[in-house]
Amino acid sequence: MARPLPTRLLAEALGTGILVATVVGSGIMATRLSQDVAIQLLGNTIPTGAILVVLITILGPVSGAHLNPAVSLVFAVRRELPWRELGPYALAQCLGGLAGTAIAHLMFGLAPLMIGTTARTGAPLWLAEAVATFTLVIAILGSLKARPESVPVIVGLTITATYWFTASTSFANPAVTLARGFTTSFAGIALEHVPMFVLAQIAGALVGLAVAGALSFNRS
Amino acid sequence: MARPLPTRLLAEALGTGILVATVVGSGIMATRLSQDVAIQLLGNTIPTGAILVVLITILGPVSGAHLNPAVSLVFAVRRELPWRELGPYALAQCLGGLAGTAIAHLMFGLAPLMIGTTARTGAPLWLAEAVATFTLVIAILGSLKARPESVPVIVGLTITATYWFTASTSFANPAVTLARGFTTSFAGIALEHVPMFVLAQIAGALVGLAVAGALSFNRS
Amino acid sequence: MARPLPTRLLAEALGTGILVATVVGSGIMATRLSQDVAIQLLGNTIPTGAILVVLITILGPVSGAHLNPAVSLVFAVRRELPWRELGPYALAQCLGGLAGTAIAHLMFGLAPLMIGTTARTGAPLWLAEAVATFTLVIAILGSLKARPESVPVIVGLTITATYWFTASTSFANPAVTLARGFTTSFAGIALEHVPMFVLAQIAGALVGLAVAGALSFNRS
Amino acid sequence: MARPLPTRLLAEALGTGILVATVVGSGIMATRLSQDVAIQLLGNTIPTGAILVVLITILGPVSGAHLNPAVSLVFAVRRELPWRELGPYALAQCLGGLAGTAIAHLMFGLAPLMIGTTARTGAPLWLAEAVATFTLVIAILGSLKARPESVPVIVGLTITATYWFTASTSFANPAVTLARGFTTSFAGIALEHVPMFVLAQIAGALVGLAVAGALSFNRS
Repeated sequence: MARPLPTRLLAEALGTGILVATVVGSGIMATRLSQDVAIQLLGNTIPTGAILVVLITILGPVSGAHLNPAVSLVFAVRRELPWRELGPYALAQCLGGLAGTAIAHLMFGLAPLMIGTTARTGAPLWLAEAVATFTLVIAILGSLKARPESVPVIVGLTITATYWFTASTSFANPAVTLARGFTTSFAGIALEHVPMFVLAQIAGALVGLAVAGALSFNRS
Repeated sequence: MARPLPTRLLAEALGTGILVATVVGSGIMATRLSQDVAIQLLGNTIPTGAILVVLITILGPVSGAHLNPAVSLVFAVRRELPWRELGPYALAQCLGGLAGTAIAHLMFGLAPLMIGTTARTGAPLWLAEAVATFTLVIAILGSLKARPESVPVIVGLTITATYWFTASTSFANPAVTLARGFTTSFAGIALEHVPMFVLAQIAGALVGLAVAGALSFNRS
Repeated sequence: MARPLPTRLLAEALGTGILVATVVGSGIMATRLSQDVAIQLLGNTIPTGAILVVLITILGPVSGAHLNPAVSLVFAVRRELPWRELGPYALAQCLGGLAGTAIAHLMFGLAPLMIGTTARTGAPLWLAEAVATFTLVIAILGSLKARPESVPVIVGLTITATYWFTASTSFANPAVTLARGFTTSFAGIALEHVPMFVLAQIAGALVGLAVAGALSFNRS
Repeated sequence: MARPLPTRLLAEALGTGILVATVVGSGIMATRLSQDVAIQLLGNTIPTGAILVVLITILGPVSGAHLNPAVSLVFAVRRELPWRELGPYALAQCLGGLAGTAIAHLMFGLAPLMIGTTARTGAPLWLAEAVATFTLVIAILGSLKARPESVPVIVGLTITATYWFTASTSFANPAVTLARGFTTSFAGIALEHVPMFVLAQIAGALVGLAVAGALSFNRS
């Protein structure tokens, strides 16, 4: 029943691309339209949460709709994704994400890629990324266990919340973080600050996996 | 079981009319109440996403609730709408849309129709319209395949997202674009800029149809 | 299986009371916190849409959760509510609504009831009320026919939309309109302007009932 | 089938912790980003409603996901939670809540706990807390009776509404109130004003329980 790998990689690349186009594009839109940073963040949050529900609903049956290397890693550890497919999944997600940044830039009349310059560093932000990814992982594994058809909405609502309660505005995704390293707009991050974000995300994901085990969110 | 064509055309006209009344009316309301353009766009986005869920839920069983000639075209290509009904569907959608503009204007004490003057042109905006309609089409076909009962919510959330991440604020609908060509308010577009928007929408829809095929979003 | 009339009247009074407390209370909160009227309306819209989903979900199985004399009238015409119960339903809704205004006022340290002074009159606003109630009625009857379990969400989303696209901000409910005639706050209406609003609402409801018939939204 | 008590206490502590981290963290974020208090409250409301849906969906099957001593008390009275577990539940909720405040503070570079200083006192606010908790209890018991799978969404929407229509912004939860007594940020409350809030919440919960009985929201 499983789709061939190329089809699944297309789904992961396309989905991550649309996700990043939404994050980056809505950030550009928001900063062009308002001076109030909270309104800008609302204008970034609402589309991101909405598109996640859409993408996971339509791509879930194709590829699982991880759209996130940290999530693919978690499923590999749980043996729900073959380890040999983790690399291809992550690569498709990263390439799709970069294409998403480029599409967003082109729609707003900007150069396709720019080196990110927004400083996002320091222990509080790293903790925030770990907390955000931890929350995302237990939300995914918990809703998969409790009510699998709710996963798209649960992920959309989780990111809606973490955008606001984590100090980093919740990147929570290595592929998206990398793609955001190539924009100087609202959603951007200095490219040199990407690696620590990714490490914090992986750490948070693994702690989430452990806590999910303690809560018996094991494979149904 | 299919409803007679006149009933279906009534549903398409009524639905597109209420959709346009929402888009145009909430735009007028928003600009009367705030100076912040991002808040105006929020006040335009939230009602539009909400009414789409309502209209597709109640009219889907009657006419399919396309409310959009580009979507009707896609279903004609997929042989889910007879080609001979494409013209009547599009006509009903366009007439309903114009009535929607007129109703919105009358509720706010304005003349029923005005020639639109808002310049919306250039390659970035045309790309944006193509991306918006592409996203709408894969969202519709993907959710029809994955979980048909989710289509109303998925369309509402898709437009909620595309309003913000596409530079054009996502018209993504030839009938709605035409109807917005007859208002000078927030949601308006200069009438001479309508044709290129429509072309971009059709191009995006057809690319979406092709990608949906690659993802096996074929008829269930 | 039907609940005794007193239980149903309790549900209608309680539900309309909480609805009005939400409309009036969130309006007071919003005007105390912001100068931007669009933000005030957002702060009024989001809670109102949310509480409608809650109230109709929990009270629907008890009394039908009309919470609205125009809706009760529609169900009486459709013979889904006995005509002899229309009066008691409307009375319970009106009394509950007045109690809701009083509770909202007391929570904000105001006198329980005040005579409304906000001018809301003229043909455009009456048209707006008719359109809002028309839309509400076809949304209710259409979702009852298409997918009964969706009615609470559909009503919440309909009012979310009509708050913004109708020039009157969509009272769309005679009992709520009366209750809003006893506050001078954001949600208020001059008491002498209540009757024309109610007439427009009833007219819109009856047109909605007729159109619902044309769309075959008859009793399932 | 019931999970062992330690697992359930872990779920209650973790869930209340994430809930409080969301309430406190999004409040800090909002006040850092905007001067408009209504926008701050929106930035506090949307994440709180969203995370409640997530937490109750994933933790409901583990512990019931009360996340609230007043709710645990209601279930104890209804004999759906053994009385001897009420104490451990409330303790886990309070400790989790305090940890949530600390995590939120650390993510924003603040000291883990601070003594709250925001005055929140007086009869109108106590009435507001009673109304908020009353509404929460009838929403929980009503949706449990009408459609158990809707409880997570109903609770999220109820709190979304009560945040705006009660003058106190709806704490409605003794454990969360205590945890908010240890922050000086947007969501804070002076520690000496916590006890009266808790009393009002318990009173409102018990009235809600009685009214739920009158509406036959008894155990299904």
